[in-house]
Amino acid sequence: MTIGEVVFRRAKWDDLLAIVRLLADDELGSQREQYEEPLPETYYAAFEQIDCDSNHELIVAERDGKVIGTLHLMFLPSLSFQGGSRAQVESVRIDDSLRGKGIGSKLMKWTIEKAKSRGAHVLQLTTHGSRANAHRFYERLGFKGTHLGMKLSLN
Amino acid sequence: MTIGEVVFRRAKWDDLLAIVRLLADDELGSQREQYEEPLPETYYAAFEQIDCDSNHELIVAERDGKVIGTLHLMFLPSLSFQGGSRAQVESVRIDDSLRGKGIGSKLMKWTIEKAKSRGAHVLQLTTHGSRANAHRFYERLGFKGTHLGMKLSLN
Repeated sequence: MTIGEVVFRRAKWDDLLAIVRLLADDELGSQREQYEEPLPETYYAAFEQIDCDSNHELIVAERDGKVIGTLHLMFLPSLSFQGGSRAQVESVRIDDSLRGKGIGSKLMKWTIEKAKSRGAHVLQLTTHGSRANAHRFYERLGFKGTHLGMKLSLN
Repeated sequence: MTIGEVVFRRAKWDDLLAIVRLLADDELGSQREQYEEPLPETYYAAFEQIDCDSNHELIVAERDGKVIGTLHLMFLPSLSFQGGSRAQVESVRIDDSLRGKGIGSKLMKWTIEKAKSRGAHVLQLTTHGSRANAHRFYERLGFKGTHLGMKLSLN
């Protein structure tokens, strides 16, 4: 394959099963997702919320009609930075069998341009402290790991 | 003062000058905010976006009619965690002269309850790696610093 064959676009309802498969397909994800057909209704409800909100864009990477990557791009209105808009990405995944081919890098560069074109002054994300490969991946794209990402489970 | 005198509520248009004063009043904030009267129009435009969006709540802490603290609470629809909603806080500030009195802790506990009552499964935030006091503050509230927060400036 060449990277050129991969298309990035907004996710559709029909993509949802493939997206959840990607989310479930790693050590952390397998513990918290429920990948089965039909999917639990909660995934569809969340998709609808995301799809209806112009500040959210669920993105897929597609090759030969198959979803092979995904990320969730969001725009956060904010007072800080003189009322500047922040862009944030969550849930970045590339199909396990296709890693190391530059698809993730191309997807992120495409996302960076999208965030710029909507006027965001920063693109932010967090990655688990244990994902050293991911840190290097984002550093190569120009990200700086200046912050500590803290989470409180509410369950 | 006793902490009991402090009220937490949603921010109003009239609070904006006081909120920007708090955002500008530290080493990082002073470099990026423009605290002046009247405020730059961009702050008002951002406030309007936040105020119109039911997934965003700009909060202030008020004592004796004066705004002495602020934070921006947001709810992020998400596919991950089986379509679970994430809560996130940004731009947390307590008036410099009133720190160490437990106001920030009370504000965060109030925010945690608010996030739970809206069904969020996690409350997440990032703090600059240099803010060791902030890390300890959030750890005392139960947050775990499991993630690296990465940012890419788009300017």
